[in-house]
Amino acid sequence: MSKKILVLGGDGFCGWPTALHLSQLGNDVMIVDNVSRRRIDAEMGAQSLTPISTIDVRLSSWKEASGNVIRYQYLDIAADYPRFAALIDRERPDAVVHFAEQRSAPFSMRGQVEKRYTVDNNVGGTHNLMVALVEADLDCHVVHLGTMGVYGYYGAGFEIPEGYLKVKIPDDDDILRDQEILFPTQPGSVYHMTKSLDQLLFQYYAHNDGVRVTDLHQGIVWGTQTQETRLHPALMNRFDYEGEYGTVLNRFLVEAAIGHPLTIHGTGGQTRAFIHIEDTVRCVELAIANPPSRGDRVKILNQAAETLRVRDLAELVSEVTGATVNFVPNPRKEADENDLKVSNATFRGLGLHPILLTDALFAETLEISNRYADRVDRSQIRARSAWNRSRRAAMDEPDRATLEVEPRPSVEGERR
Amino acid sequence: MSKKILVLGGDGFCGWPTALHLSQLGNDVMIVDNVSRRRIDAEMGAQSLTPISTIDVRLSSWKEASGNVIRYQYLDIAADYPRFAALIDRERPDAVVHFAEQRSAPFSMRGQVEKRYTVDNNVGGTHNLMVALVEADLDCHVVHLGTMGVYGYYGAGFEIPEGYLKVKIPDDDDILRDQEILFPTQPGSVYHMTKSLDQLLFQYYAHNDGVRVTDLHQGIVWGTQTQETRLHPALMNRFDYEGEYGTVLNRFLVEAAIGHPLTIHGTGGQTRAFIHIEDTVRCVELAIANPPSRGDRVKILNQAAETLRVRDLAELVSEVTGATVNFVPNPRKEADENDLKVSNATFRGLGLHPILLTDALFAETLEISNRYADRVDRSQIRARSAWNRSRRAAMDEPDRATLEVEPRPSVEGERR
Repeated sequence: MSKKILVLGGDGFCGWPTALHLSQLGNDVMIVDNVSRRRIDAEMGAQSLTPISTIDVRLSSWKEASGNVIRYQYLDIAADYPRFAALIDRERPDAVVHFAEQRSAPFSMRGQVEKRYTVDNNVGGTHNLMVALVEADLDCHVVHLGTMGVYGYYGAGFEIPEGYLKVKIPDDDDILRDQEILFPTQPGSVYHMTKSLDQLLFQYYAHNDGVRVTDLHQGIVWGTQTQETRLHPALMNRFDYEGEYGTVLNRFLVEAAIGHPLTIHGTGGQTRAFIHIEDTVRCVELAIANPPSRGDRVKILNQAAETLRVRDLAELVSEVTGATVNFVPNPRKEADENDLKVSNATFRGLGLHPILLTDALFAETLEISNRYADRVDRSQIRARSAWNRSRRAAMDEPDRATLEVEPRPSVEGERR
Repeated sequence: MSKKILVLGGDGFCGWPTALHLSQLGNDVMIVDNVSRRRIDAEMGAQSLTPISTIDVRLSSWKEASGNVIRYQYLDIAADYPRFAALIDRERPDAVVHFAEQRSAPFSMRGQVEKRYTVDNNVGGTHNLMVALVEADLDCHVVHLGTMGVYGYYGAGFEIPEGYLKVKIPDDDDILRDQEILFPTQPGSVYHMTKSLDQLLFQYYAHNDGVRVTDLHQGIVWGTQTQETRLHPALMNRFDYEGEYGTVLNRFLVEAAIGHPLTIHGTGGQTRAFIHIEDTVRCVELAIANPPSRGDRVKILNQAAETLRVRDLAELVSEVTGATVNFVPNPRKEADENDLKVSNATFRGLGLHPILLTDALFAETLEISNRYADRVDRSQIRARSAWNRSRRAAMDEPDRATLEVEPRPSVEGERR
């Protein structure tokens, strides 16, 4: 059944292919975005590896390719509440997909400006959405992109459940009582922290006002194109490879494409969850089709296909591409090594057969990396944000192993 | 040992007597406040029952009465980060006592403006403080006023611990493993939610940057004066009795003083924790004297003397004053009845012998209520903010029992 759906942040890496997919399915889709991701690129002097079109060209190309119309509203949902609330009240969507958050952990750690921006933008935007829905007295399903990172990678010994943890609490007579609680989060960056804060906002508004929320705790996304973005060259999705926004597999593939060693921060013993961008959009479709009932607690799903150790991922890429591996000091305050097992039972039960890293052999993503290798700015590859003062000091300390492969400061002639 | 202490929100109900007490102990105290509590009063057309002085007169009177100087900086810590960060860096305090939050649950539920203000102000202010301390590379002890309300009154069956809950989690082999987690909060209003969000901010910055934080989960404060505010008439503390900011015992005493029935919202079966204002300031003193070490997790203390059911409290006041009791629809979405047992072991261990409601028989607070009864605006007594649409509908439905005692709209001649 066709629905009216707002996609907040629908110009971004996950938001854009999601908007296309939901439109392709016959929904009435409206993108709401302030193109902050493009603005941040401009400020950092960075850009997508893939040449992406302006949003107007994207939308006219989508109409040309599919015959479907996606509407677009430029709006900062965090900073401009009055217009956002008016939009919600006027459009009265059946569902709102909420991607409109600053989504880079390293960017959120850059400095005081970025820390504050990430909290103000992410928490402010989410809260504005909750308040606007309550104010409009609208029974609308909010599908929010959260992150696996809220769990904090401390759950060794048990599989990370879908958002809620079954625990036993001793009562005053020391009898163990069963209780199911929101998973106690231990976010590892200011960015991840904002998703923990979002969780509490959702919990509160679901309980107090009956707002229906599905929170998708997503793993690290890889890949670029989806069925829909392939329909026209101007629909091409963005591809981030630099130290702040580039996710690890995509970054490795770009490094391989330009003959740069694969950069591992720390020991590479970090185990992370992964999902292909094609499955991201499919999961959002499934989430929209299976909303919680009004009055239910927040529905939390783990949007991840598999887990892998970063150094094993590097090995996989190295086997295919022949790239060497370079270990550099870790800018993050995190455990050197961790285990991670994640339940994605609900999505599998709904029929998701996720793409695995080994299935696809990331051939397409490698092909894109090679095709646009001449657009790579080598000076952008290395992570620059440190988590705290001691990590900063460790990064700034020159060590021989690092120096040997340190890319030179980029000058124009060296870029190719 | 004398310390340099910033008291954020030092012009408010808890902040002002705390600032005086810390100054009296010989510390170098600076109040940072944007007098938002006075501004909100002005906007609501309300005022403190007690006639309070301007902050300048307060401070000169304090110097006159005690010989001590308290400095004052007008500043909005949530809205003016640059000046706040510069202040932290310049003053380099040993401790920051953080009261600078919108602290009324009903006010936070009034409407979209107040919900958003409460989140932006409280979360923004706390985050600004964390970022400013990290940026200044300052090892400073933050003492924050939290609330018992974050626990959410769902802990029936066991005593509410001091912030962390010991649970058993079954691992993959179904063996129960002990873990201590941050108490899973279920805040009951937007205001309480902001204190839950604060908790996660503190957890994060304590872990990532070693910020030392003590979070005081305080019960409902009653009383007005402290040893220090009694030293000079111009040092008089504020006393809120109206529906938004008035806390329950103080409100009952004012109702008794003007011959108004004691207003109970709902059944009065709500059990709450209480503490006298004199003990609030003493607890802050104890918290400052016993900081966590750098690198420790957040130290959480329950700042409460006792727990009592609201209708039992009304009975206590009724016995002393002869006031009748009036039950009106509850504007809050909350359990009609709840039990509450709270551990305050740490404060008792540090030597706190709290004032109990039955000890003091609230004689002084009743005396103040009587003395200033002619300042009462009866139209301000009734709570006006409803938690959600169904609570609003219940409040707006006239019922006979309520109508019989409903105070008339205030007109000038009726006020005495």
